[in-house]
Amino acid sequence: MAVDQLSLVFSALADPTRRAILARLAAHGDATVAELTGPFAMSQPAISKHLKVLENAGLISRARRATARLSHLEAKPMREATDWLAEYRRFWETSHERLDELLAELQQSPTNGANDG
Amino acid sequence: MAVDQLSLVFSALADPTRRAILARLAAHGDATVAELTGPFAMSQPAISKHLKVLENAGLISRARRATARLSHLEAKPMREATDWLAEYRRFWETSHERLDELLAELQQSPTNGANDG
Repeated sequence: MAVDQLSLVFSALADPTRRAILARLAAHGDATVAELTGPFAMSQPAISKHLKVLENAGLISRARRATARLSHLEAKPMREATDWLAEYRRFWETSHERLDELLAELQQSPTNGANDG
Repeated sequence: MAVDQLSLVFSALADPTRRAILARLAAHGDATVAELTGPFAMSQPAISKHLKVLENAGLISRARRATARLSHLEAKPMREATDWLAEYRRFWETSHERLDELLAELQQSPTNGANDG
């Protein structure tokens, strides 16, 4: 099985630590491995492994600045993931609309009943 | 590490066969394992394994009808995944807007230059 880019992206996102790293980069901007390790009960090598997975999926880029290596959020691959998911929006929205209709009917029925007779 | 629902969903989507199964259920409705195996160069047990991963992530439900077991698309967990990704939309849109601005500038410059003098 060829590993396609979309699979790499979904796979990289399938971990709460990696999602937290992306959230941190989004909120506070570029960061070193040491800065990214701070909030987690994890070793720096463990965080480095997660960064490699994110980099491999194209979700971060890394650049050396002086003695540190800065991670930078690259959100574009998430767009393809979002586009893929958007194809299924009508399925969850349809069931949601049906629920809304059902609730509207239920809310109407007792009132009608009370006014009758 | 606790395996959260969102990680299960992203992990289930990180495979082209599983995504193709979901696309098939979306396009043609509920299907048996045999029907889902048809389009793939894969054994029925291999497809069954993929169905278990999808079921575990809440992306399909399975119901017995007569002698067959039908898989049914459950798109709702994709909504949470889409919501998570939506938080990052501004990052890919911002860079896209910047590119649009840059292109507009580039397209304007030669025209201005040609009209000058």
